[in-house]
Amino acid sequence: MIFIGERINTGFADIKQAVLDKNPRPLQQWARKQTDAGANYLDVNLGAVSGKPEDMCWMIETVQQAVETPICIDSNRPKILAEAIKVCKNRPLINSTTAVDEKLDQILPLAAEHNACVIGVVMDETGAPKDADKRLENAGKILAKAMELGIPPEDVFLDPIVMPLKFMQEQATHILQATSQFTLFSDPPPHIVCGLSNISNGTVHKKLINRIFLVMAISNGMDAAICDVMDTGLVNAALTAELVMNKAIYADSYIKK
Amino acid sequence: MIFIGERINTGFADIKQAVLDKNPRPLQQWARKQTDAGANYLDVNLGAVSGKPEDMCWMIETVQQAVETPICIDSNRPKILAEAIKVCKNRPLINSTTAVDEKLDQILPLAAEHNACVIGVVMDETGAPKDADKRLENAGKILAKAMELGIPPEDVFLDPIVMPLKFMQEQATHILQATSQFTLFSDPPPHIVCGLSNISNGTVHKKLINRIFLVMAISNGMDAAICDVMDTGLVNAALTAELVMNKAIYADSYIKK
Repeated sequence: MIFIGERINTGFADIKQAVLDKNPRPLQQWARKQTDAGANYLDVNLGAVSGKPEDMCWMIETVQQAVETPICIDSNRPKILAEAIKVCKNRPLINSTTAVDEKLDQILPLAAEHNACVIGVVMDETGAPKDADKRLENAGKILAKAMELGIPPEDVFLDPIVMPLKFMQEQATHILQATSQFTLFSDPPPHIVCGLSNISNGTVHKKLINRIFLVMAISNGMDAAICDVMDTGLVNAALTAELVMNKAIYADSYIKK
Repeated sequence: MIFIGERINTGFADIKQAVLDKNPRPLQQWARKQTDAGANYLDVNLGAVSGKPEDMCWMIETVQQAVETPICIDSNRPKILAEAIKVCKNRPLINSTTAVDEKLDQILPLAAEHNACVIGVVMDETGAPKDADKRLENAGKILAKAMELGIPPEDVFLDPIVMPLKFMQEQATHILQATSQFTLFSDPPPHIVCGLSNISNGTVHKKLINRIFLVMAISNGMDAAICDVMDTGLVNAALTAELVMNKAIYADSYIKK
């Protein structure tokens, strides 16, 4: 399982304030905490706080002063990605392109040039797909374009787009079905990732719903998630699901305490 | 989700002693507790304590003095089943036949005659299958024979046979795959059930493993389990999984406290 820590995001008030003040402490604390919890990547998201590439670069460099964990550069602006990728010490994960031609044509060459991994969100000009077939079509388009540019499938993370269970309940089965189909694209298959917390948006039992949905997604072939890596129950659930899928060998000590 | 309470089983010391002493109290206490926890059936298992049908009948009648919950008659002996079925006040679930001809020829007619539901464990003369294909073959045999006798698919509960993760880890994916295939037999499909606790046999984190495996099984189409219905975490996980599968409508109050 590839855990991508979601916490260094200006959607959280402490990070937003830290970026505004150029105060490194909160970013570095979350970088260390998430790394200690087992994060394989740290998502870094500047959000709407600023449109300046140098602010994203400051965030990444600040994180890298604290930890060696690779960065997941979270921005949909090619200009920000182009600058941010240059300051990454370790091989980054670009988050993200969509299936929209303009994005593909700007972001995939950037990934290819810098030997970066890339998340492909299966959205197109018409927005987020409503069924598994359209998700599959958009995923195929992203993957084909990536391979054309020499990016191998195992460097592509397909994101089927998780919708809130409370407001679009019927989408969950389509997402699981699409996940299962993404595993058939290639051998080795692309990675499959999601922004997990969206599933529990607006619900009362957020942690439970995140956990159960992730386990079901793993059962369908998902192998990565942008999530709350500090939630030990979530991490242990994912590790158990991977045991059931025979992707890790059983040992009595397989989970964190 | 159809929850079948596992606790009235002479494999548990208190139930064994109660049956030996013909002491109704422990059976009735567990009958009430499991019913209060939401059990749809109560499994009643005489085990190796006695081979006498009248002892099984005593257990069932004792339970029925306390609750109205339907009985899951757990025995592989046709003679015990034949007597036990007569004392059931509500429509019972017979647990179980296998795909062995001798069992099918004795147990399915009994289910048909008494309009009972029946669990078909996908085992045959050679024992428990090692892969999904053999599970599917045995399930098909049981289902076809049931339908021949006028038992509709929705009264058949197919059991893919859960193996301990610790000792036969690779079996879990075969079981999930078989579960998914069982849903394609008919429309409406047969129910799919398992003896859940077996998955965590010998492990340190039994509750976690039971919970995660059940969620993954539900994700593949399982809709019933013989399990510890007193484990609120397990029940809540299953209810959440059914929401994700769009089998129940989201409400903030969907789980038990």
